[in-house]
Amino acid sequence: MRTTILAAALALLVTAPLQAAQPTRIPNAALAKAAALRDAALQDATAWQVTESLTTDVGPRLAGSEADARAVEWAKAKFKALGYDKVWTEPVTFPKWVRRGESAQVLGANAQPLHVAALGGSVGGTVEGEVVRFPDLAALQAAADGSLAGKIAFIDYQMQPRLDGSDYGNGGRARWAGPSLAIRKGAAGFLMRSAGTDTSRAPHTGGTSYEDGLKPIPAAALSTIDAAQLARLVALGPTRVKLALDCGWDGDYTSQNVIGEITGSQRPQEVVLIGGHLDSWDYGTGAIDDAAGIGITMAVGALLKPLKPARSIRVVAFANEEQGLWGGRAYADKHVGNVANHVIAAESDFGAGRIYGFDSSARDLQPAALAQIQQLLAPLGIEWMPGKGEPESDIGPLTERGMAWAWLGHDGTRYFDLHHNAEDTLDKIDPKDLAQNTAAYAVFTWLAAQAEGGFGSAAKAK
Amino acid sequence: MRTTILAAALALLVTAPLQAAQPTRIPNAALAKAAALRDAALQDATAWQVTESLTTDVGPRLAGSEADARAVEWAKAKFKALGYDKVWTEPVTFPKWVRRGESAQVLGANAQPLHVAALGGSVGGTVEGEVVRFPDLAALQAAADGSLAGKIAFIDYQMQPRLDGSDYGNGGRARWAGPSLAIRKGAAGFLMRSAGTDTSRAPHTGGTSYEDGLKPIPAAALSTIDAAQLARLVALGPTRVKLALDCGWDGDYTSQNVIGEITGSQRPQEVVLIGGHLDSWDYGTGAIDDAAGIGITMAVGALLKPLKPARSIRVVAFANEEQGLWGGRAYADKHVGNVANHVIAAESDFGAGRIYGFDSSARDLQPAALAQIQQLLAPLGIEWMPGKGEPESDIGPLTERGMAWAWLGHDGTRYFDLHHNAEDTLDKIDPKDLAQNTAAYAVFTWLAAQAEGGFGSAAKAK
Repeated sequence: MRTTILAAALALLVTAPLQAAQPTRIPNAALAKAAALRDAALQDATAWQVTESLTTDVGPRLAGSEADARAVEWAKAKFKALGYDKVWTEPVTFPKWVRRGESAQVLGANAQPLHVAALGGSVGGTVEGEVVRFPDLAALQAAADGSLAGKIAFIDYQMQPRLDGSDYGNGGRARWAGPSLAIRKGAAGFLMRSAGTDTSRAPHTGGTSYEDGLKPIPAAALSTIDAAQLARLVALGPTRVKLALDCGWDGDYTSQNVIGEITGSQRPQEVVLIGGHLDSWDYGTGAIDDAAGIGITMAVGALLKPLKPARSIRVVAFANEEQGLWGGRAYADKHVGNVANHVIAAESDFGAGRIYGFDSSARDLQPAALAQIQQLLAPLGIEWMPGKGEPESDIGPLTERGMAWAWLGHDGTRYFDLHHNAEDTLDKIDPKDLAQNTAAYAVFTWLAAQAEGGFGSAAKAK
Repeated sequence: MRTTILAAALALLVTAPLQAAQPTRIPNAALAKAAALRDAALQDATAWQVTESLTTDVGPRLAGSEADARAVEWAKAKFKALGYDKVWTEPVTFPKWVRRGESAQVLGANAQPLHVAALGGSVGGTVEGEVVRFPDLAALQAAADGSLAGKIAFIDYQMQPRLDGSDYGNGGRARWAGPSLAIRKGAAGFLMRSAGTDTSRAPHTGGTSYEDGLKPIPAAALSTIDAAQLARLVALGPTRVKLALDCGWDGDYTSQNVIGEITGSQRPQEVVLIGGHLDSWDYGTGAIDDAAGIGITMAVGALLKPLKPARSIRVVAFANEEQGLWGGRAYADKHVGNVANHVIAAESDFGAGRIYGFDSSARDLQPAALAQIQQLLAPLGIEWMPGKGEPESDIGPLTERGMAWAWLGHDGTRYFDLHHNAEDTLDKIDPKDLAQNTAAYAVFTWLAAQAEGGFGSAAKAK
């Protein structure tokens, strides 16, 4: 009985904030300014200029590389040039992974090179072995333990393009889980068809890891074309491949989250957080991943400054997202005591396709205010999609501790053509789409900053 | 006077064959069979299978490489497997050029790698220098002699896609003539935007040469994307690049023209020659350049064999086209005494786009027979385009010595997206287009073999 009463009381306590929340409202004056802001953002070139500058002046910027440090200096200078009121950095320390070289060749009667990318986090080493092809991760899972002794496991899963990029669930899982599974089956090396939706010779890298207690094996991704070629060769008969990766861990490195803030005119201690990640993989110039996110959100702060937002606008250029959300986790660790003042957050880390959907963790708590925001987003072709969104990458760790989030979903149909490969370059971004992205983030950020009341941010235990 | 009379007599002599030629006619039975052959070829998978086999089993096959020898063995075996009556080889000796590696980096404050391809025939070497950009070859030509001392000349000409690929005139000229011109201006190195119409990170290689008496400098092509990046960097301020090419000449090599023949049932000594080239550049698997040509023409011989053509069908897989028509020149040298028996020739070396046009050197001499052929090509969407065509690549040397030629023009709009780069792979070929190509070559070859009378082949002094 007592237990039952306690449980009922606890249930009341847990749902109480939802039931008791005062409805947040956005003043009419703010709504009127949002419409003008939206139209101005559609004509504004700042996001493009910032994106072009990061991808050109700095270029590829692998976390821990010499270019990582240049990117940090670039971000500080860019925030200042854009007129941000405060600019500072917060350190982010992580193990440094280095790529020095990689190659793969078919040996024997059909000798020919294959285009490969070492997976981020792979050990280096050279292995030779017969290739055993599996159509997907499940097929490798079904292989008998030890059955791949001395062989090279090859997962040949072809990712499909989707608006929301959801088939990355399959492609990414092969990359994350494949190497450890291959080790358990006895394999000496691991190859996979790139987690990509393109048809090109550019292989897609991306992070992997090995389960504790396993002896790592070299792990690499073939371009989708090279994977198709290898599949044809394997179908002809036993095919041996030599895989040589020169890469690995090289101590620790300390990079920086670079933060620019437009100080709030009325409630400066309350923050609307937006941002993207400053690092990229090393093949491309990280244009869609994620210079675009940096360009969009840096531009939003600059666009909002003359409007003197009530709350502070905090733009974070996160360090080392690619190798495990290091910047996002460092930010959460540092600011976990101040969750309630992070009124709401939205990251842009899914390219520069047109934004088509809007959602928020506050969908049940503050439907009226979100409807007001939605009304201003609708002319951009953006739909209200409750339950469809999620917090993007680096803001995840602090949302897990109670920070409210919003989602402005980019069309990701072609995102995985370019994700983590050499083709992720400036020319892939349509300036008109980037302006639409900027307009959407500007509208959201402005209205969240002017909203009377919050969106449910409240400290939460892990 | 005597001179005038002699000139008049000579003029008569020269024009006599045209005026005196008996009209060549194609028998009705042959025309009827051509229609059935055309429809069968559209359903036939041989060309695809041959193309897939060459690009998969052999892969890239740079002239003089280990794969060159494998390609020769492959071609002999494939002709035999397809039932050719005679299969033989004829030696082709040429200087061997080797690519071992290449890289380029922007140095200094904007340090980043650039994707480059050493041009075929380039010397190796490492140079560092400030980049001087020229929008095209003419702009480099206009620079003062000696003005580029210690610098790297960069021709940034962007080729435009055309149905007939005609802008290769500009792109290819920058590649052939650019390095020597840069040397004359004092440059230490040469870079060019790839002679390509794609937007990708895959640079296009291709042959270059240096004028006699000049000291060669390293010469390479940037991918179109890297060229745009370098142009942006140069616009920002002085930009230094390090270009390191490990490549060069390495003695002589003897490859083979591989020849398969379907022996003519009535006039076996008379030959209709078709073919493509067996070698490729080394980045891609040489699918459109020129496995498709090999696939189409090998398939045509196999399709024609059961029809017992009157004349012999000779299919030539030419050696080392890419580095200077070595196979075509060797063939001409060997067979120059037998031009008249080469009734007509057509090569397929412009990819696997749909064939849209037909032309021949016999356009004025044998219009009636060509009209008969055209009638059978028309249902494939092919137009008669007198004056539009030319003999493709390897048959050029023998047409210069009097061999009649035909042109079956492929749609080349996207040909230079793939030409000489890593993206020239099997997936770029549409099997339906390849079947249309095969049907066109089959119709032409069959009707030329059955024609009563020739197309004007006659020995001609150089």
